[in-house]
Amino acid sequence: MSRPRAREAGVRFGSLSTGKKNSIADVAGVSVGHSTLRRGEGKLVVGEGPVRTGVTVVVPHEGDLFRRPVKGAYYSLNGCGALIGALQIQEFGLIDTPIGLTNTMSICAVGEGLVRYTMDRNPLAGVEEDTIIPIVSECDDSYLNDARGLHVRPEHVFEAIGNASSQVEEGSVGAGTGMVCHDFKGGIGTASRAIDIKGSEYLLGVLVLANHGNRNDLLVDGVPVGRLLDTLDPKRKEMGSIVTIVATDAPVDARQLKGLAKRVSMGLGMTGSCAHKGSGDIMIAFSTANVHDRRQTDKHIVTDKLLVDSEISNLYRGVVDATAESVTNALFKAETEKGRDDQIAPALPLEPTIEILKAHGRIE
Amino acid sequence: MSRPRAREAGVRFGSLSTGKKNSIADVAGVSVGHSTLRRGEGKLVVGEGPVRTGVTVVVPHEGDLFRRPVKGAYYSLNGCGALIGALQIQEFGLIDTPIGLTNTMSICAVGEGLVRYTMDRNPLAGVEEDTIIPIVSECDDSYLNDARGLHVRPEHVFEAIGNASSQVEEGSVGAGTGMVCHDFKGGIGTASRAIDIKGSEYLLGVLVLANHGNRNDLLVDGVPVGRLLDTLDPKRKEMGSIVTIVATDAPVDARQLKGLAKRVSMGLGMTGSCAHKGSGDIMIAFSTANVHDRRQTDKHIVTDKLLVDSEISNLYRGVVDATAESVTNALFKAETEKGRDDQIAPALPLEPTIEILKAHGRIE
Amino acid sequence: MSRPRAREAGVRFGSLSTGKKNSIADVAGVSVGHSTLRRGEGKLVVGEGPVRTGVTVVVPHEGDLFRRPVKGAYYSLNGCGALIGALQIQEFGLIDTPIGLTNTMSICAVGEGLVRYTMDRNPLAGVEEDTIIPIVSECDDSYLNDARGLHVRPEHVFEAIGNASSQVEEGSVGAGTGMVCHDFKGGIGTASRAIDIKGSEYLLGVLVLANHGNRNDLLVDGVPVGRLLDTLDPKRKEMGSIVTIVATDAPVDARQLKGLAKRVSMGLGMTGSCAHKGSGDIMIAFSTANVHDRRQTDKHIVTDKLLVDSEISNLYRGVVDATAESVTNALFKAETEKGRDDQIAPALPLEPTIEILKAHGRIE
Amino acid sequence: MSRPRAREAGVRFGSLSTGKKNSIADVAGVSVGHSTLRRGEGKLVVGEGPVRTGVTVVVPHEGDLFRRPVKGAYYSLNGCGALIGALQIQEFGLIDTPIGLTNTMSICAVGEGLVRYTMDRNPLAGVEEDTIIPIVSECDDSYLNDARGLHVRPEHVFEAIGNASSQVEEGSVGAGTGMVCHDFKGGIGTASRAIDIKGSEYLLGVLVLANHGNRNDLLVDGVPVGRLLDTLDPKRKEMGSIVTIVATDAPVDARQLKGLAKRVSMGLGMTGSCAHKGSGDIMIAFSTANVHDRRQTDKHIVTDKLLVDSEISNLYRGVVDATAESVTNALFKAETEKGRDDQIAPALPLEPTIEILKAHGRIE
Repeated sequence: MSRPRAREAGVRFGSLSTGKKNSIADVAGVSVGHSTLRRGEGKLVVGEGPVRTGVTVVVPHEGDLFRRPVKGAYYSLNGCGALIGALQIQEFGLIDTPIGLTNTMSICAVGEGLVRYTMDRNPLAGVEEDTIIPIVSECDDSYLNDARGLHVRPEHVFEAIGNASSQVEEGSVGAGTGMVCHDFKGGIGTASRAIDIKGSEYLLGVLVLANHGNRNDLLVDGVPVGRLLDTLDPKRKEMGSIVTIVATDAPVDARQLKGLAKRVSMGLGMTGSCAHKGSGDIMIAFSTANVHDRRQTDKHIVTDKLLVDSEISNLYRGVVDATAESVTNALFKAETEKGRDDQIAPALPLEPTIEILKAHGRIE
Repeated sequence: MSRPRAREAGVRFGSLSTGKKNSIADVAGVSVGHSTLRRGEGKLVVGEGPVRTGVTVVVPHEGDLFRRPVKGAYYSLNGCGALIGALQIQEFGLIDTPIGLTNTMSICAVGEGLVRYTMDRNPLAGVEEDTIIPIVSECDDSYLNDARGLHVRPEHVFEAIGNASSQVEEGSVGAGTGMVCHDFKGGIGTASRAIDIKGSEYLLGVLVLANHGNRNDLLVDGVPVGRLLDTLDPKRKEMGSIVTIVATDAPVDARQLKGLAKRVSMGLGMTGSCAHKGSGDIMIAFSTANVHDRRQTDKHIVTDKLLVDSEISNLYRGVVDATAESVTNALFKAETEKGRDDQIAPALPLEPTIEILKAHGRIE
Repeated sequence: MSRPRAREAGVRFGSLSTGKKNSIADVAGVSVGHSTLRRGEGKLVVGEGPVRTGVTVVVPHEGDLFRRPVKGAYYSLNGCGALIGALQIQEFGLIDTPIGLTNTMSICAVGEGLVRYTMDRNPLAGVEEDTIIPIVSECDDSYLNDARGLHVRPEHVFEAIGNASSQVEEGSVGAGTGMVCHDFKGGIGTASRAIDIKGSEYLLGVLVLANHGNRNDLLVDGVPVGRLLDTLDPKRKEMGSIVTIVATDAPVDARQLKGLAKRVSMGLGMTGSCAHKGSGDIMIAFSTANVHDRRQTDKHIVTDKLLVDSEISNLYRGVVDATAESVTNALFKAETEKGRDDQIAPALPLEPTIEILKAHGRIE
Repeated sequence: MSRPRAREAGVRFGSLSTGKKNSIADVAGVSVGHSTLRRGEGKLVVGEGPVRTGVTVVVPHEGDLFRRPVKGAYYSLNGCGALIGALQIQEFGLIDTPIGLTNTMSICAVGEGLVRYTMDRNPLAGVEEDTIIPIVSECDDSYLNDARGLHVRPEHVFEAIGNASSQVEEGSVGAGTGMVCHDFKGGIGTASRAIDIKGSEYLLGVLVLANHGNRNDLLVDGVPVGRLLDTLDPKRKEMGSIVTIVATDAPVDARQLKGLAKRVSMGLGMTGSCAHKGSGDIMIAFSTANVHDRRQTDKHIVTDKLLVDSEISNLYRGVVDATAESVTNALFKAETEKGRDDQIAPALPLEPTIEILKAHGRIE
């Protein structure tokens, strides 16, 4: 029996409506794919395992991203983490490769995979056309995974992209396989909101790779569930990171997308995070509107239709609420994982959690 | 009968201890002063009132700040607001005048007051020594106040500094006189935390000028009190701003202080804000440690004793929790205010709020 | 006899063509106005003078800027200086008041002048509409001026705006009255370039308030004229600041304008600056293209026609060359000024300078 | 016969003294190593060559950098380029791996090499201790090199580090093998300055990987040599990038190092660059002072002795001049290189260049 998502269990996150799938893939064209590496048990033997890691890719649209990039931005709440491609995102306000997520010391393997994938689709890149800078971020899964073994290889990127679909798998999967969140098993979570702006509907989705926080701080719908749960003490000393990706079809540019990325902080605050030192809290945001072919060299002007700033607040609200829901979904969906040296990340105990929420009037 | 602070009413904000006064003035040397301008009633006559505004100053230490500046940083979550002095804070990582808070169009009056005040104490400034750039931030109180009347003048800065003490008055006072928060009366709030780092105790305090948010979003200890209260509909259409000041005696430098300032976002998230467009969300942080005399020109090296980054997390937790408590204190302490054109910002109804919190298991 | 501009004396700055007036006012709609305060001689008596200061305003277009702001950005190479309005420029990517320049401790007087001027033109601002945050930057003229006297008052802003025209006066005028550049008399300088992009012509203009550098470092067209001139030793110990304003009619947005602002650094490098500590090096850039009425609230989308990034290089080249020319124009045009306590900023000696340039093959 | 460095040919860059070697390795402990990949000729066959590329590493000190990181900062003048590790440098103000330079699409190979090298020296990294994020930047050498062939592999990092010494080879070597600068052959250049601050001497060195600019813009000591040279027309249409590394033993922290990094822009301006679009202009700066063991967990405070800001100007001057000299050295030292498809980057013709400089009075 699969575990429920938070909303299926009755938890609510604000008053905006979700998209149909309540996932980042509610934004038309966005797909997500995983490559999960899970093998071996018991004592760590570097290079042999146990392996609890993987790759997750978020693909902004099905076309040739290198030729038709989407508007993009990033924000670093806490830079104890890596984002290959950060400077170029900032400079041009664009995302021009799929976004790869993995464990910290595998960012280069994933980066090389994205370069090879993009070269395959662009035979002139690096000859007559520009060279390719990949976009990769990460969290540290070394509590469960043989991180020094560098088990992720470039081909896992091809596999993850091959698996990409609009049905987003959550929990202990892909890059999320070895992640721990508020001392429970974490990983991938997603949510979305349908945003009304003067009668037009826009979709906004969030996906997190959640590997952050300690138990004491965890809030579910404002209730300190972490402190109230009667469970074993957490073992992990280091507190990890969270990477968040925000997607929307609203016509916002890089400046506005950076504003969306910054609001992720507020959703993390709602679930109890304080972005501990040691935690890389990195946010990437993109919009699928106003996509242009950048090889079209006959004209020097493009036309963008852009949202006026005075109407952006509902997108901000959507980011905050969908972030809180995504983190909670990662916790609700992930199953207990035993990793290297038999270290365990226990699943969030669902029934006690729901009891606590009922006792606090948060679930009817 | 004075209204209680949130903690006096039984609300808790995380598990860290507060300082003795639970205010920014728990940080030794820090004082806060107000100059409150409240006169007139009824219909707005520009230049005549009604006046509902003022000045609040946060003074980092009692000595000559221009000569002995404190380490400082700022962060702009949402730059729909002003911070005179921002570039210089960023460049040198220092705060070298008292920090003035007021209404938006009075920042220049307050800035000139700070320049005059600092000149008085530094007779060579602007002749043989450097010129003075003041530090001023603001929120928009024009819902209640005759903002176009520019009633705040430089002398109110002298009055506010003269009033500065370690007993911080909260609510509808000083710069907070005309402010509205989550559609209730807002203004000044403060809180503090005592932070243990390897056996040493540091103090960290927060002060907010709260003028942001709408009722629908308000959370008190995680409970959507704004939606649950059975009160009149809010009238204010525009959603305002919040300025937050973080003070500590922990030995952190500008880089680390910027990290503290960024965490304020997460505390705002906990109280329901999404930093609406139109809201300037500006954070200033300073440390009273490692203060040097900058006219001491016989040597070119100073010695700083600095906190190692790996031990900073409790300060981050303290910022988040004390921010949430400060916003809530502003709401708990502020009395109903009727301003220009009889527009009203109603006080947060305390008894119904406490009933709701009890019903949700948040107050015993 | 008026002193010549650098180009009239035969100096060249790169290979791009200038606009017709070789000034920032070549960008259609841009005007510049000065209010010059020059009175008294001899020993400093604070509050009485001597006064050598003023206000300069750059007005992006003749219409209502508050209602129809231009795209804008700023960059701080060295933040030892003030820019009131910085956070709001960054947040919205807009300039919505005239840009005021003055001496350091008069920024608040100029800011209040801009607020009053904008209120006069917008009777609902601060009542039914947004409050006003002015845009003001500064350099320190206290070597020549009674800076502590705060002689600039809000009414000088009205005077400067009243004087604004497309004929830009250079040298020791307006905010430039008391400024010193590379130990010679500095002040206001301007230049422009006509930029061809795929057959379309765009104008780009630069204006500087030059108060920076020491004599030893000065380069004119690459020649170390400062070191080669046989003149009296400089007296000023402190090295000041430079504020640069870049205007263009090319359709660039805030992200691209920040790129233009950053290139100013390279033009300053060409004239010998290293942005000494103590020097605030602040750049503001705006584009007069894509102006929208922000009170037009019936629609939530605007249409911008934007330059593609791949065609922006000529604008960058134009900024660098026009910056170098503007600084040199400030030096060529400014007359010797004797200020407080008979301190002197000597004009750049033109004939020896031209002799040196001829000897180095830079002027025929 | 080896080509001379610029200073050996009589060119001067400002009035500060150089260090003994006039290289980045004048900063005690700093070493530089290259791994050069040069094989094949003629028509491009992807994966087979011709290969004109390599790796250059700058090693801040001989010890264990991961355990004893140096203070560091970066600045992006133009972010059309990659810097793996950027966010972590910004967050902690530290450099904790050697800095790797290579071609654009090889950053991940070099990053993986740095991770493996650091793991070898830190057997607990990624198990009990933190995971490793490498620091890598790049320029695009695809005009001469089979960039799509991804010929650089992680083992070349080990080779480059093995080759690291305090004798810095310049020109067409290591990462510089395939680089083109102002349409002449570019690559690696370096220079240094000895900086007196109140009687104490500090060393400051610069190293560039120069792959930027067009011929028309090239300035040598202020003279437009590029325009004055009577040579063949340049073929390369795309204008590339420049990565600059600044090292010093002056006791400056991350905030101050960012100031040094920003001044690189001004040195690039002096040599004629305007940071064309398509050019990634990335600067990294580090200080070897105030190094602490970050595993020393018994105390939470470290003591730093830091330069006061008022004495930093000579370091700024040093950065600007040494940057200009480093770029010129790259041009003076690099030999003509013929690469893929027989595309040629001609060496800067030295005798004509020197003739031009003599004719303009810049060399005696």
